[in-house]
Amino acid sequence: MVTIPGRRKRATIHDVAAEAGVSRGTVSRVVNNEPYVSAEARIAIEAAIEKVGYVPNTAARNLVMQRSQAVGLIVHEPHSLFLEDPNIGEILLGANSALSRADYQMVSLVIESDRDTERVARYLSGGFVDGVVVVSAREQDPITRVIERLDLPAAFVGHPQDLRDLPYVGINNRAAARAITERLIGTGRSRIGMIAAALDRDSGSDRLAGFTDALGDRFDPDLVAPVPLYTYTDGRDGMRALLAKDPLIDGVFAASDVIAAGALNALREAGRSVPGDVGIVGFDDSAWALRCQPLLSTVRQPANGLGQRAAESVLSQLRGEAPELGGILLDTEIVWRDSA
Amino acid sequence: MVTIPGRRKRATIHDVAAEAGVSRGTVSRVVNNEPYVSAEARIAIEAAIEKVGYVPNTAARNLVMQRSQAVGLIVHEPHSLFLEDPNIGEILLGANSALSRADYQMVSLVIESDRDTERVARYLSGGFVDGVVVVSAREQDPITRVIERLDLPAAFVGHPQDLRDLPYVGINNRAAARAITERLIGTGRSRIGMIAAALDRDSGSDRLAGFTDALGDRFDPDLVAPVPLYTYTDGRDGMRALLAKDPLIDGVFAASDVIAAGALNALREAGRSVPGDVGIVGFDDSAWALRCQPLLSTVRQPANGLGQRAAESVLSQLRGEAPELGGILLDTEIVWRDSA
Repeated sequence: MVTIPGRRKRATIHDVAAEAGVSRGTVSRVVNNEPYVSAEARIAIEAAIEKVGYVPNTAARNLVMQRSQAVGLIVHEPHSLFLEDPNIGEILLGANSALSRADYQMVSLVIESDRDTERVARYLSGGFVDGVVVVSAREQDPITRVIERLDLPAAFVGHPQDLRDLPYVGINNRAAARAITERLIGTGRSRIGMIAAALDRDSGSDRLAGFTDALGDRFDPDLVAPVPLYTYTDGRDGMRALLAKDPLIDGVFAASDVIAAGALNALREAGRSVPGDVGIVGFDDSAWALRCQPLLSTVRQPANGLGQRAAESVLSQLRGEAPELGGILLDTEIVWRDSA
Repeated sequence: MVTIPGRRKRATIHDVAAEAGVSRGTVSRVVNNEPYVSAEARIAIEAAIEKVGYVPNTAARNLVMQRSQAVGLIVHEPHSLFLEDPNIGEILLGANSALSRADYQMVSLVIESDRDTERVARYLSGGFVDGVVVVSAREQDPITRVIERLDLPAAFVGHPQDLRDLPYVGINNRAAARAITERLIGTGRSRIGMIAAALDRDSGSDRLAGFTDALGDRFDPDLVAPVPLYTYTDGRDGMRALLAKDPLIDGVFAASDVIAAGALNALREAGRSVPGDVGIVGFDDSAWALRCQPLLSTVRQPANGLGQRAAESVLSQLRGEAPELGGILLDTEIVWRDSA
């Protein structure tokens, strides 16, 4: 039993172990509800916990706090992308503005490694946040499983295939990719390729599907250059690969504006004019689109709005409202400029 | 008195107010050690707290938790810069890697508004983090004052003038700016200007001072274009301003690589060749330097290392070691490529 207030020395796991006559590890397994403890030891440990007044940190904290008034924003991205993808920054700032209005503290948690994943899972289990916005989750994502297990109020930006019953906010990548590809076809280009990034993500695979939809019978799988990430370097490499496959390529759908910026670099290197020799379109309408020369034709997606909307979903769940299942899709729009 | 374990209903601030016959606001002022409470009310409230067993959340949490095993990373930047400055991402990832190795959770906290500042200050006071890394603090920063008041283990990246006794990690911006300006002078340029960003920050004002040092008697204040932030747009605007002031300008020190990239855009617009008509150098050696055409001559600063070193300073303080005062300066290096 702990008497509060009054800063008496707290009972520790050592005290419990000594009282019960078992090892600290065994106490820890009981406290964390892990298997492989005999019924006898479990009873002795539970009695000892009661007697010495031991309070496991997490449980005690949850008991006294109940609410942290903080919401986590989990960004699961490799190093390079975190630095370069303007959507991530916009999503983060959109979520921060919605949470700030509701007086919640946004805490962003970066996942770059398996070690990070484990630690973030423990952080979520520890009750440090009341809910969570997850950006760019993969399929089979361990963090998704932790959220389900804890029944933590959550909203995803984007939509991994195995998300099941968790709410998400996104755009219709497939329809938007189809629309801009059709527009590119409409400019009279006949050999149209795609630099397809991040095919392990819903955004990447859906944009490729939309491109395929638009081309129909004219789709040529040889004119797809798959690249790992939405980065400038990948865009340049992808364009070089397309030029090597078909020097007469005259239209390119770049899976993002950053990819298009890298592709423009490769086209300039190869002495191709844009939009004269090659028409190119991007996706995002981020700051990159206005930085390209010529200015980029692209799909505008409301990245800031995605972050806000996801945060609002978490806030509504924290107010006790049922989550909107099946996903919330925000509108996109074609912004036609000079690159095609 | 609260009995743990066993999930009894906790006493609330309402119970204390009712027992003491005062308002909730008065109870709150006593709990938070605020002034303007009569001695009489204070005694009544303290007795009531004892009687009903009320536990203020923060105190109770600190009592039972002692350690959060989390370290905050505070980024105090306006929207546009957060999206665009590659140093911020690198610092964040460097700090995350050091904290992750020590099994600490990094939680990053964005400050975009006064409202954010107040909430982050409450978050720090609430014991949610054991220490903090602060990126781009300003002078008179309220967060710095909160850290001093709480005596929170902290390290700053960069060095606001009023930092006094808190540890910081940085580079010698002034010496590095002087060195690259001297190198630019050495290429035979005679009308050298500077696009000087963020003069309200130590990095910005120190880089201008280094530029001035290098030029000595030849320094011409008319050839300095001050711009607010390290952004592409500010770089473009700054270069346009310099060209308007002196169409014969033949050398430019851009306060960062992003600034240089924007300036290159303005020079291209104006039909100036680089390095033929104008030699330009940047600062950072970020991804932008290799994206510029021609490749940018610049100063390499170890942004990832700054984040790591600052996090290590906080970790050493958490181990009970005395902070290294007076600042830790990491080395920079000139990387000479094609733009000057």
